[in-house]
Amino acid sequence: MNTLGKILTLTTFGESHGPAMGGVLDGMPAGVDIDMDELQRFVDRRRTGQTTGSSARVEQDRVEVLSGIWQGKTLGTPIGFLVRNADARSADYEEIARCYRPNHADYTWEAKYGIRDPRGGGRASARETVSRVVAGGIALQALETLGIAIEAGIVDEAGLEQAIVAAAREGDTLGGIISCTVKGVPAGLGEPLFGKLHAQLAAAMMSIPSVHGFEYGDGFGMACKRGSEVMDQFVKREDGTIGTVTNYSGGIQGGISNGEDITMRIAFKPVPTLMRPVPTIDRDGNPVTLHPRGRHDVCVLQRALPVVEAMAALVILDNYLIKKTNVL
Amino acid sequence: MNTLGKILTLTTFGESHGPAMGGVLDGMPAGVDIDMDELQRFVDRRRTGQTTGSSARVEQDRVEVLSGIWQGKTLGTPIGFLVRNADARSADYEEIARCYRPNHADYTWEAKYGIRDPRGGGRASARETVSRVVAGGIALQALETLGIAIEAGIVDEAGLEQAIVAAAREGDTLGGIISCTVKGVPAGLGEPLFGKLHAQLAAAMMSIPSVHGFEYGDGFGMACKRGSEVMDQFVKREDGTIGTVTNYSGGIQGGISNGEDITMRIAFKPVPTLMRPVPTIDRDGNPVTLHPRGRHDVCVLQRALPVVEAMAALVILDNYLIKKTNVL
Amino acid sequence: MNTLGKILTLTTFGESHGPAMGGVLDGMPAGVDIDMDELQRFVDRRRTGQTTGSSARVEQDRVEVLSGIWQGKTLGTPIGFLVRNADARSADYEEIARCYRPNHADYTWEAKYGIRDPRGGGRASARETVSRVVAGGIALQALETLGIAIEAGIVDEAGLEQAIVAAAREGDTLGGIISCTVKGVPAGLGEPLFGKLHAQLAAAMMSIPSVHGFEYGDGFGMACKRGSEVMDQFVKREDGTIGTVTNYSGGIQGGISNGEDITMRIAFKPVPTLMRPVPTIDRDGNPVTLHPRGRHDVCVLQRALPVVEAMAALVILDNYLIKKTNVL
Amino acid sequence: MNTLGKILTLTTFGESHGPAMGGVLDGMPAGVDIDMDELQRFVDRRRTGQTTGSSARVEQDRVEVLSGIWQGKTLGTPIGFLVRNADARSADYEEIARCYRPNHADYTWEAKYGIRDPRGGGRASARETVSRVVAGGIALQALETLGIAIEAGIVDEAGLEQAIVAAAREGDTLGGIISCTVKGVPAGLGEPLFGKLHAQLAAAMMSIPSVHGFEYGDGFGMACKRGSEVMDQFVKREDGTIGTVTNYSGGIQGGISNGEDITMRIAFKPVPTLMRPVPTIDRDGNPVTLHPRGRHDVCVLQRALPVVEAMAALVILDNYLIKKTNVL
Repeated sequence: MNTLGKILTLTTFGESHGPAMGGVLDGMPAGVDIDMDELQRFVDRRRTGQTTGSSARVEQDRVEVLSGIWQGKTLGTPIGFLVRNADARSADYEEIARCYRPNHADYTWEAKYGIRDPRGGGRASARETVSRVVAGGIALQALETLGIAIEAGIVDEAGLEQAIVAAAREGDTLGGIISCTVKGVPAGLGEPLFGKLHAQLAAAMMSIPSVHGFEYGDGFGMACKRGSEVMDQFVKREDGTIGTVTNYSGGIQGGISNGEDITMRIAFKPVPTLMRPVPTIDRDGNPVTLHPRGRHDVCVLQRALPVVEAMAALVILDNYLIKKTNVL
Repeated sequence: MNTLGKILTLTTFGESHGPAMGGVLDGMPAGVDIDMDELQRFVDRRRTGQTTGSSARVEQDRVEVLSGIWQGKTLGTPIGFLVRNADARSADYEEIARCYRPNHADYTWEAKYGIRDPRGGGRASARETVSRVVAGGIALQALETLGIAIEAGIVDEAGLEQAIVAAAREGDTLGGIISCTVKGVPAGLGEPLFGKLHAQLAAAMMSIPSVHGFEYGDGFGMACKRGSEVMDQFVKREDGTIGTVTNYSGGIQGGISNGEDITMRIAFKPVPTLMRPVPTIDRDGNPVTLHPRGRHDVCVLQRALPVVEAMAALVILDNYLIKKTNVL
Repeated sequence: MNTLGKILTLTTFGESHGPAMGGVLDGMPAGVDIDMDELQRFVDRRRTGQTTGSSARVEQDRVEVLSGIWQGKTLGTPIGFLVRNADARSADYEEIARCYRPNHADYTWEAKYGIRDPRGGGRASARETVSRVVAGGIALQALETLGIAIEAGIVDEAGLEQAIVAAAREGDTLGGIISCTVKGVPAGLGEPLFGKLHAQLAAAMMSIPSVHGFEYGDGFGMACKRGSEVMDQFVKREDGTIGTVTNYSGGIQGGISNGEDITMRIAFKPVPTLMRPVPTIDRDGNPVTLHPRGRHDVCVLQRALPVVEAMAALVILDNYLIKKTNVL
Repeated sequence: MNTLGKILTLTTFGESHGPAMGGVLDGMPAGVDIDMDELQRFVDRRRTGQTTGSSARVEQDRVEVLSGIWQGKTLGTPIGFLVRNADARSADYEEIARCYRPNHADYTWEAKYGIRDPRGGGRASARETVSRVVAGGIALQALETLGIAIEAGIVDEAGLEQAIVAAAREGDTLGGIISCTVKGVPAGLGEPLFGKLHAQLAAAMMSIPSVHGFEYGDGFGMACKRGSEVMDQFVKREDGTIGTVTNYSGGIQGGISNGEDITMRIAFKPVPTLMRPVPTIDRDGNPVTLHPRGRHDVCVLQRALPVVEAMAALVILDNYLIKKTNVL
């Protein structure tokens, strides 16, 4: 249940204030060159302290690869990796153990397991995304050798910094929309029934903490168009390849990539932790007021960019491998 | 790859103009009463000829259950089922074998498999959803005994019929948005990391043909709100249960159900087949004009309602079963 | 739970006296030629009435393929198939509904599901193996094009027919050992940890009804040898390939095929249904005597040969496909 | 591919001379008490230096749990764990990088991945079993609270020590047979088709390095018996429970546990590394002589006992959880 993927699988573990976050990336093809510095730089993009309004928690997030890569090459064996939790201050979080923070997973987690680690949100903390970024960073390097590139960006980024400053001043938080484009994907990736490429991408993106919506191509906008308005005409290009003139379909038709850019948009809700007193209830149902503690982001969008890219990379590489099995 | 689910799994098969569509629903708990008439009525909701603008293809869609249900009760064994394809007129589709219809899966399918069954779109036809509806109808009956109800509806249904008539007159097609609500789900369902309940729902809904977007709760709308505006306050109700005053979260927090109604919206692109000449290319890249043939829907929204309900039912029941394993 | 395999998956369904047995073979590569007559002949090898001591139940076992094969070629889509149950005489089996036959699954099935279909043993009947043979027969044809051949035989077959006649005369039954050899498997198939090739073969063979033991290479015999006695020396052959002089290892080293013949032996317990009065208890624990009814085999070994070959074929082809994903 | 299990899953990683072995045990029910000292003692049973003829490599094998257990209780979240590789002397193994050791995985590994880590056998080393023992030790503690106990023993242990001394003197090695009994398993565990309880146990045991055979109940011995000779008569016991008088079936009927002791036997081949010169070939096919290096066991049976128990524990607990989903 903590595993993603079919051939290339990522299994992660770790609680926010436990000793470490980590995971196992299994099914990576053998013989792929992995540049550990490049991987560390990719993971660094997710760190705090680099953008306005990010959490004061400072983690070095040094990636420790424990297996599966030797002398700079993947072995085909599972890649076990760790990122230590260094700056955990659990004292900040004792109140949470008794109360249910609104829009957090405190209550639902307890309803599910009957027990939870309240320190820093435990496993429900967005800190778990560091494991996704490590694994996705490895997948990205494999995709690069195949000529596939992934880039995420913030939709309407202009003015975001001021909005963050303004929200922070009032102890409030922001959400937003991230777009992601995958270039260079060959036609033919994706499983046409339940495993449509966009269904897999949706599941991967919706599994990122705080995500509330996903669309690909023209998405929700297509719902109010007529068929004739969103028709992607086929053309034979000068180099002999087949493509489409427009790309309303977002690079995927019938659940399978068509060789055009894969485009998608992912909606994030605002960060649920406010830096102001918040009324809620405790485990017995008594009203209580939560006072701002801990260290939290005002807006996660900048830090979420490599997470989105990582999830896209894992899905695309997995489907690249699956496609190899479509013929004898 | 044609299988959905973890404990409750649905594997389907069938090409649009082959002998039959069908599937295997495995993992259904034993001893559940199944009313075959009720199941047939549910499947009938998806049939053509009941709403304006639906395809002229007439299929009785009689459900044949071949195993797993005996004397009106599930046995715990896999439920194999069939729906025959009766009104298949493959002559209509010979042209497709040589051409790539825009916004269809003809080209991508060929890029993936190197071969395709062009008759009626083969497996890429939305006819495959009949198997989903059979399996989902069975799951719905199990959920009913648990007090869980699912209802899908068309967003902004007013005026849809006129719009369909207008579009049909011009040989054009429509898309739209379907909302779906699940009531009575106990708190605690969903797997908090990659298998977040909304991630599973997203994957299930995005796997329905023509779907281009998914959101739950306030979805994309949350992206431009502040945290303080979408805070679902907890309350202890008079009956002692815990709930929330508002439901921006759509009944899911941290990927786990919180006992409130689960709400989601699914965006469908317009039907890709126009009833007017459409320019495209053939397999060799030569420009050709496709003339309207076959029998197609102008708008699939009404027929898609039971499909959406079926997918929701499969996901919810699967997670209900998974939850049983969270404690010894 | 009724599914076998990773990329090439077989999901089966069907109760012995229900309308049909069947299954879905998913993940078959596209473009493979399938000869339906050859497939039927393979399935016929499992039919009754061909060997001494086989059950009097007569089933034509006509294979109906419902999808996934078109114009003699696989489409890459799931292959749904059926075999009708024609000669079911459920009246014979009413007694079983109240009693637990020794060495049968009546009691355990009820302990698991709380309900069972007693007609002909329901899903616990060895009749389910017909679905395995259909799917395995398809896999065999794909393997054939790869130069891989599978042959099962009865160990110590001499004298078996007389032994069957003698046992039948006393209303008794027999077991036995089947050996199976896979020739032409390239080196490199198998997943070295939990999915060792022999572990997958063991699981597949042990899942055949009545099987109580599995070994590969020199198997149990290796346990009492010294390391120096079972050393398979490597040689470079004249054609430049690498092989071993002896084959104590049974063609698999470290869970991965080494290019030599894969050899294994499978132990079957004697048929549990005797044709003589048998003492047992009913559901309330009262002693009862079961009188011989129904139609049963005295010995299943001959009919089990294609089942063993089918299971081997499914495992080998699945691993052939998995190997394609070991490099980019 | 490095994952075992359905609900309770173990994913492992680690090369013999890499920084660490480890794994993720996912799906453990929440709220189970785990005694870390007891766990360490279980893992210690697998260490070297405790029995005659075990390897000279000295590893402390301290278990580091990184997540999923807090304040002595499981959280329901994945349990990530590590065991460091401390006493790795890779210099000993340089020769292996160029040669194929007979009965080892050097050649097959290279045929599969095109690359391998030769240090200490890399991932093909039996050192990977330490991860199995950690995970199995945790599962065992959960089973204990359910009244289920597992015990493995060496068949014909008398005289083993002298045989080891004798073999060691000649630079030779030994195999042997381990029996394993699971007591207290309730009736009703196991999936009756491909996931028969004994098929799962077979796959788990056959995945242990060096295992060449598996049987349950009377196993291969049943193959030459008549049905009347191995009939396990049912009885109603004085306490009202149903059992069998004999247990030829080994506690499993139709793939499902019947409440009797589950019994099985596992055959190990002799250790493949001899402490004497061994002729083989190098990567180019040239004959070479391997001289004894590294530190190896003469016989692994004693150290394999906790590995066998661990594998049984993982399978039984997984099936205990699966059974919970058989009814609504």
